[in-house]
Amino acid sequence: MNKNHNKHAQNNLHTHVISYCLTHSVCLFSCHKLQESLLSSNSGYSNYRGVLNWCVVMLVLSNARLVLENLIKYGVLVDPIQIISLFLKDPYSWPALCLIIVSNVFIMAALYIERKLSVGSISEGTGTFLHCINLAALLFVPAGTVLILTSITPVGGVLALSVFTILFLKLYSYRDVNKWCREIRHAKARTLSRSHSCPSVHKANGTTGYTHVIYPANLTHRDIYYFIFVPTLCYELNFPRSPRIRKRFLLRRLLEMVFLMQLILGLIQQVSPPLLPVLLQVPNHFIWLIFFYWYFHSSMNFVAELMQFGDREFYRDWWNSETIPYFWSNWNIPVHKWCLRHFYKPMLVKGVNKLGAQLAVFFLSAFFHEYLVSVPLKMFRLWAFLGMMAQIPLAYFVGRFLRGNYGNAAVWMSLIIGQPIAVLMYVHDYYVLHYESAAESTAA
Amino acid sequence: MNKNHNKHAQNNLHTHVISYCLTHSVCLFSCHKLQESLLSSNSGYSNYRGVLNWCVVMLVLSNARLVLENLIKYGVLVDPIQIISLFLKDPYSWPALCLIIVSNVFIMAALYIERKLSVGSISEGTGTFLHCINLAALLFVPAGTVLILTSITPVGGVLALSVFTILFLKLYSYRDVNKWCREIRHAKARTLSRSHSCPSVHKANGTTGYTHVIYPANLTHRDIYYFIFVPTLCYELNFPRSPRIRKRFLLRRLLEMVFLMQLILGLIQQVSPPLLPVLLQVPNHFIWLIFFYWYFHSSMNFVAELMQFGDREFYRDWWNSETIPYFWSNWNIPVHKWCLRHFYKPMLVKGVNKLGAQLAVFFLSAFFHEYLVSVPLKMFRLWAFLGMMAQIPLAYFVGRFLRGNYGNAAVWMSLIIGQPIAVLMYVHDYYVLHYESAAESTAA
Repeated sequence: MNKNHNKHAQNNLHTHVISYCLTHSVCLFSCHKLQESLLSSNSGYSNYRGVLNWCVVMLVLSNARLVLENLIKYGVLVDPIQIISLFLKDPYSWPALCLIIVSNVFIMAALYIERKLSVGSISEGTGTFLHCINLAALLFVPAGTVLILTSITPVGGVLALSVFTILFLKLYSYRDVNKWCREIRHAKARTLSRSHSCPSVHKANGTTGYTHVIYPANLTHRDIYYFIFVPTLCYELNFPRSPRIRKRFLLRRLLEMVFLMQLILGLIQQVSPPLLPVLLQVPNHFIWLIFFYWYFHSSMNFVAELMQFGDREFYRDWWNSETIPYFWSNWNIPVHKWCLRHFYKPMLVKGVNKLGAQLAVFFLSAFFHEYLVSVPLKMFRLWAFLGMMAQIPLAYFVGRFLRGNYGNAAVWMSLIIGQPIAVLMYVHDYYVLHYESAAESTAA
Repeated sequence: MNKNHNKHAQNNLHTHVISYCLTHSVCLFSCHKLQESLLSSNSGYSNYRGVLNWCVVMLVLSNARLVLENLIKYGVLVDPIQIISLFLKDPYSWPALCLIIVSNVFIMAALYIERKLSVGSISEGTGTFLHCINLAALLFVPAGTVLILTSITPVGGVLALSVFTILFLKLYSYRDVNKWCREIRHAKARTLSRSHSCPSVHKANGTTGYTHVIYPANLTHRDIYYFIFVPTLCYELNFPRSPRIRKRFLLRRLLEMVFLMQLILGLIQQVSPPLLPVLLQVPNHFIWLIFFYWYFHSSMNFVAELMQFGDREFYRDWWNSETIPYFWSNWNIPVHKWCLRHFYKPMLVKGVNKLGAQLAVFFLSAFFHEYLVSVPLKMFRLWAFLGMMAQIPLAYFVGRFLRGNYGNAAVWMSLIIGQPIAVLMYVHDYYVLHYESAAESTAA
């Protein structure tokens, strides 16, 4: 009886399993299907957000000792005296800061030239001439000051020249856009009968709660200073604005800025120049990567959030670059946008062919790279210029022979190996120049 | 006249620029739009394939020196004598290999039991009993041999036990699936009038050019050995097959296998145990990562390609795990699939609740981890078992307090820090046991 009962229960169970099997048959019987592994290149899979987190965790863990040691030694991770000494030789003379304060003169000049132009009290030709003088002065005045003044440090010089270069690009854009506005006003006056209005000026552009500004109402101090402080190089009358300042977002970016700044300076202190062998490429690369995040993500987003500037595309996915040009046109979007809008496209309009225009952009970029390095170091070696120009044959080689992940690996290799070599060239020459001359004068 | 001509040309140009502006207005005037940076967590962007390539490039560059040095020293990266000595104490006695050859007996046993069951010459109860004996022997015979034989090295022992554990899981699955087939044959015979055929058995399953096998035609030597060599633990009558062997794919996987094997062994030689401090977590983690790729991507894909086995899902995107259970159910798909199909789901069918079944799976996994480590080392310390069981409170903590990228970082941290601690425990105990006893016997 008991045995029979057991058998019945077991039979019930079996029926249960079978019905389960039949309903879930695909799962229990054919549990395999034709598919590729995710890491195979033909799987089409590309979500590696976790790998990025892994890099961050590894970076934190491998630098934890450095951070802790410095924290114990100085309390604030980095020796503050040493940092200040990078910017100043004499605490009573702040040449770089003075230069930056003086830059306001050029901003005012650009604004007043535009105001005169808007009411027609000076001709377009005179306006262009005055703008040219203003822009040329923006490049030569700081360069001259840095070269003449002995009290300016290389770091202070780079900082001042960077500010002036950014200002140069911004005011160039400011002048261009205002000129386009005048031309369109002109064109509209002529074609008024056709009631053809420029679509761009009347676009809402995602901006809510802000009054729409039409030329020449934009020629105010408030407007030009907003443009100067906002993280973009391309002027626009009505920037897209973010609806509100997100406090948590702002705080997180601020913490990142403070922490990463400390980390960068700590890492630079570790890589002290007299000990710098060629094999220190990896720390250099790390510093560059952290700098990228610090500048293009944390700092720019912080400033943009504070000023409710809506467009946060400061970089695109350059880490996936499979060609050299893709890298150059995606890692620094403000500069890329400026080059495209104010240099490359106007050249195409003027009838220059595409390749010529591309080479011209590279040439301009190489010039500014050299300008930002040679002048503060007071050494004209052309390494930065040649480094930029070397990208052209490299781009040809990578584009011609390597595809997909191999192309991407080649781009990374060029970054990891190429960049530190250029840096090393300058460091080497700088030390030879300063230490050898010091040694000679001691010997004499 | 000339001036007028110039003016005309300039006017033409202006009209050109204006028409250009009007047609490309969005580009020239409003070149900004409301958008987030890609690295912001609310951008929804996740394509970081390039970061993975970066990791590979960094790995190659940072190991280039090690590889070159070993290449110069030994010619083949790794000292071959030292490797062989890991497997063998006495070159005339190959205990691990003998054990693996003996394993064929158990495969034959499973096949013959199933053949008897299929024709009904033994009852289901007898079949289950014989299978249990066979499966138990699969675990106890090698364990006993490894514990008794002194000529077997720990590495040889781990290898032999791994083979037997895989065989245990495979033959368990083989028995289960054949039993289900018999039950369905039974059910079909009873419900023939309703002409209800099992959908799973008749599915084409993406297999082209292969004859569809129906139970009991699958009970052949060829079929069971195909299952034994194929990289899966779940038996199926009709595996999905890839249409052809891709020679280039095979060659690339082979090169990866050879190179990465050398790299792993080279890295292990660097981390020589007497010098092993707690801070060597990072190399251990690297070895684990390379091992993962070597085993789950290169080797399994190589074998699958060679045997035209279609299902290449040997792992899922565990690198994006935001919780501990997600990691455990995605990094080792063959084992995960087996647990789900032959352990977890049958338990649910038997009425066990979900949490209980999950804990049982973890318990089983912990048992096998301990089995594979303790027996070859001849040390019963329970570190591996405790390490696996510690995942349960850890999973609770991570799931409760951390989300998104923070959860992912926590999973990585637990891998980077947790795993080497368990390894270190065994290494420490092993050296204390062997070196201290050696020192004592020398002193005596």
